[in-house]
Amino acid sequence: MEALKQKILRDATVVGDDVLKVDNFLNHQIDIKFLNEIGKEFRDRFDDVRVDKILTIEASGIAIASIAAQYFDNVPVVFAKKTESKNLDKEVYEASVYSFTKDKEYKIKVSKRYLNEGENILILDDFLARARASLGLIDIIKQAKANPIGVGIVIEKSYQDGRQEIEEEGIRLESLAMIDSLKEGKIQFR
Amino acid sequence: MEALKQKILRDATVVGDDVLKVDNFLNHQIDIKFLNEIGKEFRDRFDDVRVDKILTIEASGIAIASIAAQYFDNVPVVFAKKTESKNLDKEVYEASVYSFTKDKEYKIKVSKRYLNEGENILILDDFLARARASLGLIDIIKQAKANPIGVGIVIEKSYQDGRQEIEEEGIRLESLAMIDSLKEGKIQFR
Repeated sequence: MEALKQKILRDATVVGDDVLKVDNFLNHQIDIKFLNEIGKEFRDRFDDVRVDKILTIEASGIAIASIAAQYFDNVPVVFAKKTESKNLDKEVYEASVYSFTKDKEYKIKVSKRYLNEGENILILDDFLARARASLGLIDIIKQAKANPIGVGIVIEKSYQDGRQEIEEEGIRLESLAMIDSLKEGKIQFR
Repeated sequence: MEALKQKILRDATVVGDDVLKVDNFLNHQIDIKFLNEIGKEFRDRFDDVRVDKILTIEASGIAIASIAAQYFDNVPVVFAKKTESKNLDKEVYEASVYSFTKDKEYKIKVSKRYLNEGENILILDDFLARARASLGLIDIIKQAKANPIGVGIVIEKSYQDGRQEIEEEGIRLESLAMIDSLKEGKIQFR
């Protein structure tokens, strides 16, 4: 997605050799107009499949999924919870996700009421690196006997193994920007 | 907002005497079409003020703020972070928020880059009870020398002191549904 590449080159900053900061338009301050462009692009990429629901993960996936859902006939969005909440149902689907950046496992949870057998579920998220969050969401979708029909990612770090992990699951992955390297502070797209 | 009252009566459940579960349309599964109605209503309520930016707090405020922003000329949305993030700037505005439900203090943080002196900031969130989160956001806006021009809330628990706290700050509060009591599992609107 050319407009996204231009946005990244203009507004993102690289920290070290691996961190791409996009907090001025994607995951702290949110550029709503641009997110609509992203939503349309996801619709174009997954135009050939029926999408019954969009699944994402708190917090930074929520804005992306919510705006994008408007281009998928306003399907419901469900976001997996990372944090304990007294208001969450007792009956949940649960997966363990290993965070490389924080070097620890955490649980993600979705109430059983919000994923149903046979539904076509599209996963949307901001970043893909080693795909641990996406694999956790795929696991949860499978527990619900629903169909993980695809993963849509805004920014893929293509130099990590996330794409391979998802494709090995036989699941389609669409990334709007693919980055081959962030070395020496230089963003190199595929 | 009559449609919201009807939605609450149809889809929300009461747990105990104080918890209103709205996780099937507002804060776990999200009804995007209905959120657009909520966004329009916020626009109508704050139609007489200039809004430069919408401020909310992760996670359940994000969808509301993002969809609503589309009715405020796509102003940027900023969400305060509750969790530590290695990608957050070092330079942040910070406030302490006491959580009655969890009986502990937590910090909320906003990068100094995303709130600017003189900007008119509208706070949007899902619930208002004792207003601790909103007061924390107001504190952060004032640190930035920006103007907290209003607080928009989807569901106010009017039997708690949140409204009073915000009005004592001299700040306008618009709640789309006001609840006087949840006692004995019965939702009583104002």
